[in-house]
Amino acid sequence: MKIVCSKNSLLKGLNTVSRAVPVRTTLDILKCILIKADPEGITLTANDTTLGIETRIPERVQETGTIAIDASLFTNIIRKLPEDDVYIETDADNGVSIKCQKASFAIAGRGTDDFIALPAVDSSSQITVSEFTVKEMINQVIFSIAESDLNAAMAGVYVEVLNNTLKMTTLDGHRISIRVSELKENYEDVSAIVPGKTFSDLSRIINGGLEDEMHLLFSKNHIIFEFGSTRMVSRLIEGQYFRIESMLRSEYETHVKVNKKDFLECLDRSTLFVNENDKKPVILTITDEEMNLKLRSGIGAMNENLFIEKEGQDIKIAFNPRLLMDALRVIEDEEIDIYLVKYNYPCTIKNEEETYTYVVLPVNFTED
Amino acid sequence: MKIVCSKNSLLKGLNTVSRAVPVRTTLDILKCILIKADPEGITLTANDTTLGIETRIPERVQETGTIAIDASLFTNIIRKLPEDDVYIETDADNGVSIKCQKASFAIAGRGTDDFIALPAVDSSSQITVSEFTVKEMINQVIFSIAESDLNAAMAGVYVEVLNNTLKMTTLDGHRISIRVSELKENYEDVSAIVPGKTFSDLSRIINGGLEDEMHLLFSKNHIIFEFGSTRMVSRLIEGQYFRIESMLRSEYETHVKVNKKDFLECLDRSTLFVNENDKKPVILTITDEEMNLKLRSGIGAMNENLFIEKEGQDIKIAFNPRLLMDALRVIEDEEIDIYLVKYNYPCTIKNEEETYTYVVLPVNFTED
Repeated sequence: MKIVCSKNSLLKGLNTVSRAVPVRTTLDILKCILIKADPEGITLTANDTTLGIETRIPERVQETGTIAIDASLFTNIIRKLPEDDVYIETDADNGVSIKCQKASFAIAGRGTDDFIALPAVDSSSQITVSEFTVKEMINQVIFSIAESDLNAAMAGVYVEVLNNTLKMTTLDGHRISIRVSELKENYEDVSAIVPGKTFSDLSRIINGGLEDEMHLLFSKNHIIFEFGSTRMVSRLIEGQYFRIESMLRSEYETHVKVNKKDFLECLDRSTLFVNENDKKPVILTITDEEMNLKLRSGIGAMNENLFIEKEGQDIKIAFNPRLLMDALRVIEDEEIDIYLVKYNYPCTIKNEEETYTYVVLPVNFTED
Repeated sequence: MKIVCSKNSLLKGLNTVSRAVPVRTTLDILKCILIKADPEGITLTANDTTLGIETRIPERVQETGTIAIDASLFTNIIRKLPEDDVYIETDADNGVSIKCQKASFAIAGRGTDDFIALPAVDSSSQITVSEFTVKEMINQVIFSIAESDLNAAMAGVYVEVLNNTLKMTTLDGHRISIRVSELKENYEDVSAIVPGKTFSDLSRIINGGLEDEMHLLFSKNHIIFEFGSTRMVSRLIEGQYFRIESMLRSEYETHVKVNKKDFLECLDRSTLFVNENDKKPVILTITDEEMNLKLRSGIGAMNENLFIEKEGQDIKIAFNPRLLMDALRVIEDEEIDIYLVKYNYPCTIKNEEETYTYVVLPVNFTED
């Protein structure tokens, strides 16, 4: 194999596919990136067996061939090269020579026989959506997944194409996060549980531009993302997702409007007194025009009032402040609407259009 | 005690004195900051017994008094407050109340009887120099100190006032770093070994402006830094500093001029192949107009040529590339001058005025 490509496009390609190189593995071939040079061009591939990524890079192939190279060493070499053309050549013993300007490097590659190819997937349905929407939706739900030995689905994002909307749902036993976005065309309904790591990786790789379109292809066991010159293939988490309808009420006793930044900063101050050994909740006392926040622990005590608009009943209810903060951090509205029922019922933060819905369970509390 | 001060000036003061709060200690009082309000104003003090820092903050004292408060908790509370006036009040049981806008906090302070006051120091001599110069000099020598159980002086910076220059020297057994800066006035000669940590802390606290003047006061066992409204008192490391004159030759066999950025990037690429278990050196082969860098290890091999200007003998010599890189990173010149004698003699990087001198020991090498 003999190829020439620019340092920057090679590095961009390596950074993209490296997301599918496992941090820890005992299988050496999984640590490698496959470089394939054929008459159509150069493809970089990595595959950790759950997630596989391949990307094409602009190239001049002088001699076709394939080689597997340790991803971390190869990426580090390319990163430290001057910004110029890089010449890569392999010999019969899988030796790899890398040249750039006056620098030359020799490293050992390996044969590609045991490299695990990306699965061939027959997709049954496909949607088109902007990278901006996908990136934003991921970032607004990904924080409430949980690694659970008891239920694999908790480590996933439930993706639904439903009535021409794209919907993402996550939950971790203490809260539910839901984002909905309208699709521009008509699509068949379909759903899948996508591993959280796949979505974290995707959100880091895509540009996220409003004009950048991407395709999501669904099959029985896989989801495929196609964008630019890159293709990501991820296994799905098997099984049924949770039935969450009973948690999502539409009738409430109390409706509060509050400035998001003020509420977030106030909750942040309450965390100063959260003792890791004895987690005290923040107690919210909601009366007309005022919400009082109070937290007392062995470390100290805080007490603060926020101006609010309120409809309905007064209420006293307690939360783990960090769970509320996680939701508030990803909401972009200046004012938020909070809906409450009783001290032992979940609270719901959502906008009128219900493009986002965050449900947080309260915790027990005792007054001093 | 009852005081009012702006959140920002209080936070700035806390960040300054917190440098003298030890990260780990079993003595609770050392984790505290002393707040003292007297008719002249408010002083914050911290003292880890090697380094003590006190700073004055703009204030309105309503009631004099003193209190010791856990530095980390207090700083975190103040950091999370809105930018407004902060009201602090203590009660007879050392309870501390902190109020800002509608937020109020209650934490436990402690009595100040066991707080270790800064030592009273009679300084014998004093110099004035810009914060810019001190900050720059520290950053250009601090990297070559070493924690050594055998020789405490290696963990220090040797500071000399010598013929109306300020000189800082560090060494770690593999290299020596020296920076010299002219002083504007005439001063008596004096020298001291200052703990490296004191200088790291100082360089982070001072603004480093060209117009910001600071004073260095020397006594037998202490050095004092006075700048703005802050005073740092540090113990000195006892004993004699090393005699390094024999390492500083003025006659050389080879003189090389090379572009600093190119040399640094080339050395950086050689570190890709440094195996932590079997540290191979980078081998420099210096001939007319060319320096070849070569490193071969179990990971792979690199080979690169740099354009140089050379006077004197050809030479082949080997180094730990990271030691050369540390020096090159802090030199601001575009071109550097390297002076060599023989393959087993230290190399010297210095400018004509000798405001900086970096001496690096070579290592043994075998050609493949």
